[in-house]
Amino acid sequence: MAIVTPLRPHPHPSVRDPERTRERILGAALKEFSAHGFAGARVDRIARRARINKRMLYHYFGNKEGLFRAILRRKLGERLAWAAATPGDPGESLVFWFDVTCRDPDWVRLLQWEALEGGLGTISREAERQRAFKLGIVQLRDRQARGLLRADLDPRQTLLGMMALTMFPVAFPQITRLATGLRPKDPAFRKQRIEFLRRFAGALLPERARPAARRSAGTGARS
Amino acid sequence: MAIVTPLRPHPHPSVRDPERTRERILGAALKEFSAHGFAGARVDRIARRARINKRMLYHYFGNKEGLFRAILRRKLGERLAWAAATPGDPGESLVFWFDVTCRDPDWVRLLQWEALEGGLGTISREAERQRAFKLGIVQLRDRQARGLLRADLDPRQTLLGMMALTMFPVAFPQITRLATGLRPKDPAFRKQRIEFLRRFAGALLPERARPAARRSAGTGARS
Repeated sequence: MAIVTPLRPHPHPSVRDPERTRERILGAALKEFSAHGFAGARVDRIARRARINKRMLYHYFGNKEGLFRAILRRKLGERLAWAAATPGDPGESLVFWFDVTCRDPDWVRLLQWEALEGGLGTISREAERQRAFKLGIVQLRDRQARGLLRADLDPRQTLLGMMALTMFPVAFPQITRLATGLRPKDPAFRKQRIEFLRRFAGALLPERARPAARRSAGTGARS
Repeated sequence: MAIVTPLRPHPHPSVRDPERTRERILGAALKEFSAHGFAGARVDRIARRARINKRMLYHYFGNKEGLFRAILRRKLGERLAWAAATPGDPGESLVFWFDVTCRDPDWVRLLQWEALEGGLGTISREAERQRAFKLGIVQLRDRQARGLLRADLDPRQTLLGMMALTMFPVAFPQITRLATGLRPKDPAFRKQRIEFLRRFAGALLPERARPAARRSAGTGARS
């Protein structure tokens, strides 16, 4: 679906700058999809929040699906850029993605809605997402070849495991609170989590690459 | 809220056996809450699926909230029993909980709805769930004391991490498919995942408890 760009400035003050108007609509739509999912999202609420009339919103994005596709395209673009910037060390990579996830809880909610609604198959930019995941797997294989990651771990399962460790606490804030007594947004939680991810990741390193301090960690408790 | 038990057999054939009728209603309600969440669930659909009239359903469970509480009570009871049966070895414990999660995807969906809807606070049996999580943390501390789990890992964060590793692939089936090419229900995925969890759990063992094969794993890739 092509995005329709207005050919000339519209007289209404809020649409004088088409780029800013598009941004405002996208921001409002992200809030709506994050709160209610694709099925539950209402274009009239998005229009109201973006301070634009519904006709003009349709002019920019076609329909609800067009809006959703535009958001997905934006988000996937951001994530591909982050993927390219992922640190090579497993611990720092976990910390990096945990940080990204904490700053973008809307993305986690969109994925959760997608998981529950199940029906987003045709609009979920499958091919683009496949490519992003393939890139992640190639990165992990490369780290295994460079001795930064244990070679006996299946890279596909490792990718899924790393996503689990970084996304789960944000996806299930009630479980985070029950397990740790803290909310995912709490800086104290984030500090604890980052410390945990760094320590945990030590064991993802090939044996000879592990820091000595970490190698002996834990044995003290056996006394 | 007390559950009302019918005092005498009802003439309608489907309610002759109150226990079976209750079970049928609970089964139908679990399907409905799992598909639509608490807010989206419709008592009339539950009644239709349970082949009972709505008046009779209210007689058994009071209202939608009563039904939801009954399901939560049942599910939490099951999970406490499983918690007590959790193996001590971290790898086997991950495999055990992964297996439990695969057999109970409805529970994961209920938690996801809870995360998205956010408003289930007052009906979520907070105290009972707190106790279940405390039990999990006590188990992990005990494993640390027995040398089955690295002592330098925060048990609360470890619990959250173990839940993440076992629940995430079922909670996000689309991510599982993108990362591995397989659906979470696929026996091939489960086999791969179990193998991964066993290897990955090596990361949770104190150094001296790690099998020698695992200790040297990965170094071959550095050649």
